[in-house]
Amino acid sequence: MAISEEYFMGLAIKKARQGIGEGQAPFGCCITRGDSILSCEHDKVWSRNDITAHAELLAIREACKKLKDVNLMGCTLYSTCEPCAMCYSAAQWARVSRIIFASSLDDALQAGFSKVKIAQEQRGEMAGLNIEIRGGLLTAEAKVLIEQYREIVGDRIY
Amino acid sequence: MAISEEYFMGLAIKKARQGIGEGQAPFGCCITRGDSILSCEHDKVWSRNDITAHAELLAIREACKKLKDVNLMGCTLYSTCEPCAMCYSAAQWARVSRIIFASSLDDALQAGFSKVKIAQEQRGEMAGLNIEIRGGLLTAEAKVLIEQYREIVGDRIY
Repeated sequence: MAISEEYFMGLAIKKARQGIGEGQAPFGCCITRGDSILSCEHDKVWSRNDITAHAELLAIREACKKLKDVNLMGCTLYSTCEPCAMCYSAAQWARVSRIIFASSLDDALQAGFSKVKIAQEQRGEMAGLNIEIRGGLLTAEAKVLIEQYREIVGDRIY
Repeated sequence: MAISEEYFMGLAIKKARQGIGEGQAPFGCCITRGDSILSCEHDKVWSRNDITAHAELLAIREACKKLKDVNLMGCTLYSTCEPCAMCYSAAQWARVSRIIFASSLDDALQAGFSKVKIAQEQRGEMAGLNIEIRGGLLTAEAKVLIEQYREIVGDRIY
């Protein structure tokens, strides 16, 4: 029996929670191929002092390392939040097949984070490389992350 | 007397040329603040086996490290090629003030590279964070990089 999408998203949420405990922004990401977990990362913008260290970017880098390949075709990216334009484009370059996210960029915006969004019509600009993308999985759980972040870390944003 | 834009772009081109010699994709990037060079990087997608290791992303990460700050406001990013959507969005997150590029994404496309472009109307989606962006500086020299790449490295693309 295949492992459920909820299970993988749950791992991304758990990883984000761990990040919050370390004072990091409330985002987590997990990349899978079939039932294998290739990577699971939380945001490390502050701990690494690296504005590009979003959970998705770190997970893409780690998955490339794991597969010894810059092509992640056939992989699914689970993110606790809708990927920003940087992360979405990175997924395009990596040829990720599917993105599943929980809360939306508007939820992150409400928490004070900036919003660098890629327009729907821009998605899949690379011919033949449309990524299947779907939101709303475990959204309630993911929104709790943002509340926990504000309670624990406060109003620090980037 | 301020150092010229041509000088900084020349450094990015020189760095890209170094990368080609090492079998890397023909792109270079240099980030400055006033007359200070904060970072200068070439593409390392293959040497690091990391699809996100575009010259601009590496230069942004290095500049954050140099300034001990994830905010690069006031900085100028010189790129031998028009930044892709991933790199442009990373520059937005970093609040880079100005982007100057040489050749266009269409030139890179002609060399066989995929094109993940951010539409003009999407640029500066973050309120108040429009980045001044201008192309065409030392374009002829930058186009030579792409030719050199094909001669030396061949038709390997990502």
